[in-house]
Amino acid sequence: MRIEIICTGDEVLTGKIINSNFSYMAQKLEDVGLSVHWGTTVGDDRDSLLAAFRMAGERADAVIVNGGLGPTVDDLSQEVAAQAAGVGLVLDEAWLVRMEEFFARRSRIMPPNNRKQAMLPDGAEFLDNPIGTACGFALTIGRARFFFTPGVPRELRRMLEEQIIPRLLAMAGLQGAIFLKRFHSYGLGESHVDQLLTGIEAMVPDGGVKLGFRAHYPQIETKLTVRGRDDDDIRAKLGPVAAEVRARLGNFILAEDDQTLEGVVLAALTARQASLALVETFTAGAIAARLAHLPGAEHVVYRGVIARDLDRVPGAVGLSHLLLTDAMTQDKVEAVARAARDAAGASHALAVLIELDAGADRIDLGGTVWIAIAHPDGTSHGGVAFRRSRIVGGREWVRLGAAELALDCLRRFLQGLPVVERIDFEKV
Amino acid sequence: MRIEIICTGDEVLTGKIINSNFSYMAQKLEDVGLSVHWGTTVGDDRDSLLAAFRMAGERADAVIVNGGLGPTVDDLSQEVAAQAAGVGLVLDEAWLVRMEEFFARRSRIMPPNNRKQAMLPDGAEFLDNPIGTACGFALTIGRARFFFTPGVPRELRRMLEEQIIPRLLAMAGLQGAIFLKRFHSYGLGESHVDQLLTGIEAMVPDGGVKLGFRAHYPQIETKLTVRGRDDDDIRAKLGPVAAEVRARLGNFILAEDDQTLEGVVLAALTARQASLALVETFTAGAIAARLAHLPGAEHVVYRGVIARDLDRVPGAVGLSHLLLTDAMTQDKVEAVARAARDAAGASHALAVLIELDAGADRIDLGGTVWIAIAHPDGTSHGGVAFRRSRIVGGREWVRLGAAELALDCLRRFLQGLPVVERIDFEKV
Repeated sequence: MRIEIICTGDEVLTGKIINSNFSYMAQKLEDVGLSVHWGTTVGDDRDSLLAAFRMAGERADAVIVNGGLGPTVDDLSQEVAAQAAGVGLVLDEAWLVRMEEFFARRSRIMPPNNRKQAMLPDGAEFLDNPIGTACGFALTIGRARFFFTPGVPRELRRMLEEQIIPRLLAMAGLQGAIFLKRFHSYGLGESHVDQLLTGIEAMVPDGGVKLGFRAHYPQIETKLTVRGRDDDDIRAKLGPVAAEVRARLGNFILAEDDQTLEGVVLAALTARQASLALVETFTAGAIAARLAHLPGAEHVVYRGVIARDLDRVPGAVGLSHLLLTDAMTQDKVEAVARAARDAAGASHALAVLIELDAGADRIDLGGTVWIAIAHPDGTSHGGVAFRRSRIVGGREWVRLGAAELALDCLRRFLQGLPVVERIDFEKV
Repeated sequence: MRIEIICTGDEVLTGKIINSNFSYMAQKLEDVGLSVHWGTTVGDDRDSLLAAFRMAGERADAVIVNGGLGPTVDDLSQEVAAQAAGVGLVLDEAWLVRMEEFFARRSRIMPPNNRKQAMLPDGAEFLDNPIGTACGFALTIGRARFFFTPGVPRELRRMLEEQIIPRLLAMAGLQGAIFLKRFHSYGLGESHVDQLLTGIEAMVPDGGVKLGFRAHYPQIETKLTVRGRDDDDIRAKLGPVAAEVRARLGNFILAEDDQTLEGVVLAALTARQASLALVETFTAGAIAARLAHLPGAEHVVYRGVIARDLDRVPGAVGLSHLLLTDAMTQDKVEAVARAARDAAGASHALAVLIELDAGADRIDLGGTVWIAIAHPDGTSHGGVAFRRSRIVGGREWVRLGAAELALDCLRRFLQGLPVVERIDFEKV
């Protein structure tokens, strides 16, 4: 089945906004085993829209049009769709009532402009928008079924998932049930993960499991798209494959599905009624900023301390006698973690001290990352886990990599996994 | 002049990467007074590429093609371009030598694959790539001039600016000199800025100045595109308009051109040999993370302290007797700023304490933001500047808005401007 996407709007065409709706839609379709064959971007211009609709209507089986359903005069999708299909516009009374209720719930009167959003091409199939005033609709133009969607990302997302993808799967004659399983890992490069998972798709002989990746440094997302007759069939297929992925990627899997690394760390601390102190240098708050704003973190993250200059770290944690910069040692970093923990009255502390190379930013600029985790277990005044690593690749690469490595070390420690395990992103 | 953009590559078409090259190119063209009329996205597929090139060659005057110039078998741009133009491929000897030198400088032998990158359609005009192995080229297909560019963003950017835009301006018969002036502001909404700048374009009667905006909450970018005979003409046109923009937006302009708010704050502190302590709560390191990783910040940002729970703020700055949560007052927030400054031994301190509304995240969830800046001026133990604001719009909106407001208050204080001035983003 040939699917095309048409993105409309002057803001997209002029580059005023980055078109993330396109990649979102394309990924969602890939995730269910469908593919986009062609993308078109046009502005709020009648002639361009009409030409784009007609061309896609000749080439494709299904077309998703995004944007142009708003209340203003430059929102032209309904009008041009009707023209391309050779029909008129008719008022959808039910949607008009829904819109009036939408405004009434917000104690506002619906402006007369919005009435336009209830005018749909004659014969169009209504697509519900439960969270906005731009309803979608489906209509046949040429030989293709067109699906018109709102430009507001969260409205698009809901309509795509709940209404359009099921219709596309039915058109494609694909088995009804689809499930996307995701694993998030840190420490292995994409080609390394790919190699470790060789042959995993073949575990399900009917081709019902497809493997894919998405890399966004420092993490890699591994995706399994599972297709089956029904939910039971999917569970039966996914179970052994997911177990095998977990076995092969092992300790490197930091989260699954909608979980995040920082969410996993926060949940692990919360579950053991633990609390945390943080010490940062060159990451400069990047670790705290991922973790401490999350709901519930107010009961867990007791204190974060940032000292950009290593010489100022000891003073900030009440160890004024300590001198770090004559020579960093494991003992000193561990002492900093212990002191931060004690000063904050927390059960755990994560200290991340970075010796950044001197000089201007360049691709071979690196940093030595010293990580210590003070915790209440072990000896009478608690133990410390330690990890040292060297990351090379420029200032931003080091900053992002160090924040990820440190949070992942804490995740490993809290999950009882080895804190020290060779990763692809470090120099040895 | 009708310009089209064709983006190629399976990674873009499947949404695996977000197509930021498209918006970059479109914006750059807008900035010099050119417009993109149509965008096409196709994968690494011979038939799709050929169809896209032929259609654009019939419709457009100029076409920019992005991607597909790499060394691997799925990089098809040269081959399909030659086919569409009805010519063969010929070896560009000079580029082959340049590539071999490129590898030699990195102590590597050029892999045989890369030879393919020196095969250009017969008659194509060479476009230099001084920082990579994918050279660009220009070629006429149908009635349009095509410009083929590499997919690597930094290589594309340089080729677009240095080689393609001058050619497009010449084709369009536009005056040679163009200048883009940018102002960054915080606190006024886009429509408010637009209204304040009414009539500004008309100050230059020949239409040589064009006004535009780009909003990325919490900042608004105001752009003046100036066209003139030469640099002197541009300076003469821009001078009075830029002065008028500064007069009308006044204290709300936080930076110009490539400057950033955090960069301006750091420079202002550095210039007066000042140093800074930070205290954050719900922003949880977001303010420190913008400022303290910048080059030079190691001599300025002495210490940052984060306490997610307001009750833990006093202990973190050595004021254990203070109780914040019975009732916040200006006096208490000022005391926190003073204590943070003293504890860190810094000349200045910025304390940003946020009372976040209770309950689940929703659009009407807000926070009261208490900001105090302790400084060495005024009385014998220094003064404190104060600002309170209420921001509503959900957790992320409050978090980002509070970080921006706080940094901007510090910027205003350091520049001798009023710290308290009504902004559009606060509830009163």
